[in-house]
Amino acid sequence: MKPFMDPDFLLETGMARHLYHDYAEPMPIVDYHCHISPREIYEDRKFDNITQVWLGGDHYKWRQMRSNGVEERFITGDASDREKFQKWAETLELAIGNPLYHWSHLELQRYFGYTSHLCAETAQEVWDLCNEKLQSPDMSARNLILQSNVKVVCTTDDPVDFLEWHKKLAEDEGFPVKVLPAWRPDKAMYIEKPDYPEYIKGLEAVSGRTITGFSSLLEALCVRMDFFAALGCRVSDHGLAYVPYQPASDAEVDAIFRKRMAGGDVTAEDCAKFTTAFLINMGKEYSRRGWVMQLHYGVKRDNDKRRFGLLGADTGFDSIGSAGPVSELADFLNALALTDELPKTILYSLNPNDNAAIGTIIGCFQDSSCVGKIQHGSAWWFNDHKRGMQDQLTSLASLGLLGNFIGMLTDSRSFLSYTRHEYFRRILCNLIGGWVENGEYPDDENVLKKIIEGISYQNAMNYFGF
Amino acid sequence: MKPFMDPDFLLETGMARHLYHDYAEPMPIVDYHCHISPREIYEDRKFDNITQVWLGGDHYKWRQMRSNGVEERFITGDASDREKFQKWAETLELAIGNPLYHWSHLELQRYFGYTSHLCAETAQEVWDLCNEKLQSPDMSARNLILQSNVKVVCTTDDPVDFLEWHKKLAEDEGFPVKVLPAWRPDKAMYIEKPDYPEYIKGLEAVSGRTITGFSSLLEALCVRMDFFAALGCRVSDHGLAYVPYQPASDAEVDAIFRKRMAGGDVTAEDCAKFTTAFLINMGKEYSRRGWVMQLHYGVKRDNDKRRFGLLGADTGFDSIGSAGPVSELADFLNALALTDELPKTILYSLNPNDNAAIGTIIGCFQDSSCVGKIQHGSAWWFNDHKRGMQDQLTSLASLGLLGNFIGMLTDSRSFLSYTRHEYFRRILCNLIGGWVENGEYPDDENVLKKIIEGISYQNAMNYFGF
Amino acid sequence: MKPFMDPDFLLETGMARHLYHDYAEPMPIVDYHCHISPREIYEDRKFDNITQVWLGGDHYKWRQMRSNGVEERFITGDASDREKFQKWAETLELAIGNPLYHWSHLELQRYFGYTSHLCAETAQEVWDLCNEKLQSPDMSARNLILQSNVKVVCTTDDPVDFLEWHKKLAEDEGFPVKVLPAWRPDKAMYIEKPDYPEYIKGLEAVSGRTITGFSSLLEALCVRMDFFAALGCRVSDHGLAYVPYQPASDAEVDAIFRKRMAGGDVTAEDCAKFTTAFLINMGKEYSRRGWVMQLHYGVKRDNDKRRFGLLGADTGFDSIGSAGPVSELADFLNALALTDELPKTILYSLNPNDNAAIGTIIGCFQDSSCVGKIQHGSAWWFNDHKRGMQDQLTSLASLGLLGNFIGMLTDSRSFLSYTRHEYFRRILCNLIGGWVENGEYPDDENVLKKIIEGISYQNAMNYFGF
Repeated sequence: MKPFMDPDFLLETGMARHLYHDYAEPMPIVDYHCHISPREIYEDRKFDNITQVWLGGDHYKWRQMRSNGVEERFITGDASDREKFQKWAETLELAIGNPLYHWSHLELQRYFGYTSHLCAETAQEVWDLCNEKLQSPDMSARNLILQSNVKVVCTTDDPVDFLEWHKKLAEDEGFPVKVLPAWRPDKAMYIEKPDYPEYIKGLEAVSGRTITGFSSLLEALCVRMDFFAALGCRVSDHGLAYVPYQPASDAEVDAIFRKRMAGGDVTAEDCAKFTTAFLINMGKEYSRRGWVMQLHYGVKRDNDKRRFGLLGADTGFDSIGSAGPVSELADFLNALALTDELPKTILYSLNPNDNAAIGTIIGCFQDSSCVGKIQHGSAWWFNDHKRGMQDQLTSLASLGLLGNFIGMLTDSRSFLSYTRHEYFRRILCNLIGGWVENGEYPDDENVLKKIIEGISYQNAMNYFGF
Repeated sequence: MKPFMDPDFLLETGMARHLYHDYAEPMPIVDYHCHISPREIYEDRKFDNITQVWLGGDHYKWRQMRSNGVEERFITGDASDREKFQKWAETLELAIGNPLYHWSHLELQRYFGYTSHLCAETAQEVWDLCNEKLQSPDMSARNLILQSNVKVVCTTDDPVDFLEWHKKLAEDEGFPVKVLPAWRPDKAMYIEKPDYPEYIKGLEAVSGRTITGFSSLLEALCVRMDFFAALGCRVSDHGLAYVPYQPASDAEVDAIFRKRMAGGDVTAEDCAKFTTAFLINMGKEYSRRGWVMQLHYGVKRDNDKRRFGLLGADTGFDSIGSAGPVSELADFLNALALTDELPKTILYSLNPNDNAAIGTIIGCFQDSSCVGKIQHGSAWWFNDHKRGMQDQLTSLASLGLLGNFIGMLTDSRSFLSYTRHEYFRRILCNLIGGWVENGEYPDDENVLKKIIEGISYQNAMNYFGF
Repeated sequence: MKPFMDPDFLLETGMARHLYHDYAEPMPIVDYHCHISPREIYEDRKFDNITQVWLGGDHYKWRQMRSNGVEERFITGDASDREKFQKWAETLELAIGNPLYHWSHLELQRYFGYTSHLCAETAQEVWDLCNEKLQSPDMSARNLILQSNVKVVCTTDDPVDFLEWHKKLAEDEGFPVKVLPAWRPDKAMYIEKPDYPEYIKGLEAVSGRTITGFSSLLEALCVRMDFFAALGCRVSDHGLAYVPYQPASDAEVDAIFRKRMAGGDVTAEDCAKFTTAFLINMGKEYSRRGWVMQLHYGVKRDNDKRRFGLLGADTGFDSIGSAGPVSELADFLNALALTDELPKTILYSLNPNDNAAIGTIIGCFQDSSCVGKIQHGSAWWFNDHKRGMQDQLTSLASLGLLGNFIGMLTDSRSFLSYTRHEYFRRILCNLIGGWVENGEYPDDENVLKKIIEGISYQNAMNYFGF
């Protein structure tokens, strides 16, 4: 029996161990997609206790506690941090086969030096150990990033954001990690949201442009993209139920926008047409600027409306959705390719059933403007586990060029979650190492090194142009 | 090479063998969902020969015989039982990798002591052996249930059923196994069926209520639910093409019902609205009574209309379907959660593509009223095989708390099919044992015991409240 | 570590090696579905260099080169054959886990005797070796077919084809391999295509029938089917986005056809109705003639419209689609079964999500007119890789009778791609061998031999009636 999560965790063959320890492990991290706060980095935030770090905002963990019948007051309510931690420890021991089990113990091992396992019985010793360690200067936001060997961090930012913390970080010579903004204009796209007109007023104010129609909306966004670009932005992101392709004339899209701004109602068809036009225009701008377009789709949000009403967004009530046909995705990409304005694009579906379709769609739109121009994004959110990552990697390998994959995205809301890169790299090396051990790929040291270092780090650096 | 289906069948590691033999194997069975006849239990039915037991009503086997080009007279027709058995033996040897191969041999081993394999050549010796054994008193319905270590059996019953055999069994002190009714009101829901008005007349008669509209239909059903509850019913079941969410006003639903009762036609939209309202009202009743709601969906029934016309329902002409969007399932659950009337619910899709979506939807509706309140039901019917069970277990583990899973449902139509619990437990222990051997979960004897015994038996006892 | 692609490539157990080397490997090939040119066979084509063979028309390889950022002139353009080969070698080394890696090296090993691996560095030595070997008489089209142990080849032919090369080959006593036409009437079905009326004029000419409506269209096609049958045709093929079932009256279908022939536009509904009627009528003819109906669906073609416009069809811009509900497939088959006119049928979806549904649908329509009458076709095109084949085989085994499977289709456009049968057989033997080693199926030599030889060769011979 292998010891529990030892240095060879998930590495089942000699070749897997060699590839991981010699090539993957030493590589730095490019955290090109996360949700951490640039302010907390700038201010070098510290944490009082492990409940703050782990349970303060992590809806992955909250969902599992609810699955274990834990009362809400021990999750998001007014119970003490120690009580909440106990409930989490009792829950975790039942999470056999869940990535939270592995992530939690990777974090305990790497950042706190704890190598036993957390369960109801060991909760007190883990609580004491972690809270003591958290007092050390090593455990501040900046030091956690540095000791995780991160070279670049891209946060997630709204077009109206002033990016003041990014500016300050850029001017701070004491912190060598690039902290760059990423462009996420969802609020400018979701025309059906109640506060849409209000949001557009804010965009007018910050961009200095009067927004009277769809074309002036785009102009205002371009002003903001210039501002983001000046602070090093190289990547955009869009969160979608599905990638739509419902073409409409400029006049029609403009009329939909004006109707909405005048307080009118929009139909589902209006929304699909507006979203299509919005994304196509954004895509053309990304292409012109050399930015990468990330399309995250397949999500059905806020399913439990009552508790969403009580607790707000991102509190654990989202699921995998299957709203639209995957064929519209291909038609959408074609609409940009027709005029040779398709930017570098990464496609992520939350629905793992889309893996094979995505793997074949990306193959239709590759061209010589960039190596691996259209990417099948790494297994994400609900798929960010051993099976999900193996499936995405195997699908990508079977249908395309795995060697050009830009690898893992962190998607984190915590300074400890860089260990997910370790998790991904172990799974990657075990898969590829297994193929070599099994005679399915030659033991060619040069190429294997290039492939492993590429997927771990170098491909992303080249792709985004950091 | 491992011997064919020896005591360590499907158990590939030492930990898997330990978990199975020491924890899973001794656990009793909770058969919370089956299709066996309470009358046959009460009357302690015996069988003349193995063809009666195996081929009398088992459409799983009939389908495979047709796949092998066997004439219908050897399947459901007037050929002799010995001839039918021969055709089955010839078919079975080609069923490599099929669960019927394993189920059949588990039954031959456990109930008949036959450890070689059934094929065309051995058919005669198996025929002779089984038929001789079937004469023994051990092989009556009650004794088969007892020797299978079953504690509770829930049959499947229509609201108009008088449950006379359940009553007699409850009064029979000589049989220690609980045989409880389960509530399956499909006939009261499928408004589009030709005999619907006639069925409602029967429900009027048995409930003593005049049914003039939708609300009096619900009242009549409540009368029957009280009757079922008095005989120990704790669980309902619904068979669906998909879980709909097409809300309509009470008046509209009532009008649809009245139109149908007056002999009018109903549209597909009518049916979706009626089904939605029916299921929501049922769900609220289950919540009030503490019953469990089972939703089985993803089925497309009676595909070969000509042979369905000749042979009737449940004769082997059903398939996996993909009728409706999985997102309606989330909206349906939300409709019950809005008023905090969502009962304990088990979701089963016949379409394995739904695994990941279900795994994320259940996570949105968990609460502290019950541990593991919303369950992803075990791999069922066409998915009830090694790959299907591994996939369901892995998906559930990756997305939720496997430790709270209520485990296998038998869904059987035979007194021999309790060996499917053995099959499930072996697959479960092999999966979890493999994780422990591979260092992915600690070798913590206490927790592993709790998890294995829980999934095998205890979790279901707690969940249903038997 | 196993050596790279040695004689035991993909065979992980002793039983797998025994089954492959002793039973599968010696079996001849039935190439019942391919896209090679009967003219090139008749004329015994030879090749100047390996770029001609490998990169002349293989859009699988073109897609990967584009994924690697290679300029189009090195793919389909005017670069030299040597330059193109270099770009391919540079691309291939990144294709770790891709079937092209394995296919390419199987071809290098079996036809050229090259046992090292092709990469940027070895490109020159491979180029020299292959081009020298290609000068040998062994490497002509006919000799490649003969040394691949092929007994029957079915090409893919349009109803208007004169089949002159098939005739000449039939009369040529010096070539012992049967080269038979296969009937692919897509152009007579896709009423929405711009050149449809023109195509029908051609069909009139070649059939000698005046086509004034739908029934005379069918008569003209029957004339051509008689002609194909006279040259040994036993199999048809249809390429579809999805299998539709949109029934319409004869008069309606006739009106749609006449409208289109008069130059009118057809709606999507018209197309679905016409396609349904067309396929049902074809199916009845196949049933009458004992032909096999192949339905290939799940494709979304020509996604990059700009490059499709430049390079034409089959140049690498197709993807997996999900156009229609799988339930229509069941209804379509039922429409033929209702009158007992369902022919032998093979279902292939390009969307691997359909595997389980197909596996259950075929089980509804089996009958005693043929062993394994309705088949789940082998993993195809984008699924023709190790994972895809394992998934199709495991799904088929779990749901039906794997022992009756007719096995691999080549689908090739090259005389070297018979090694894909070897690839398939290795995967098959590894799967079945693993089950036997693991005690999941008995070590019964007779039955295993029958199963392996059957799936490799004999089942297809029996099924098609060659």
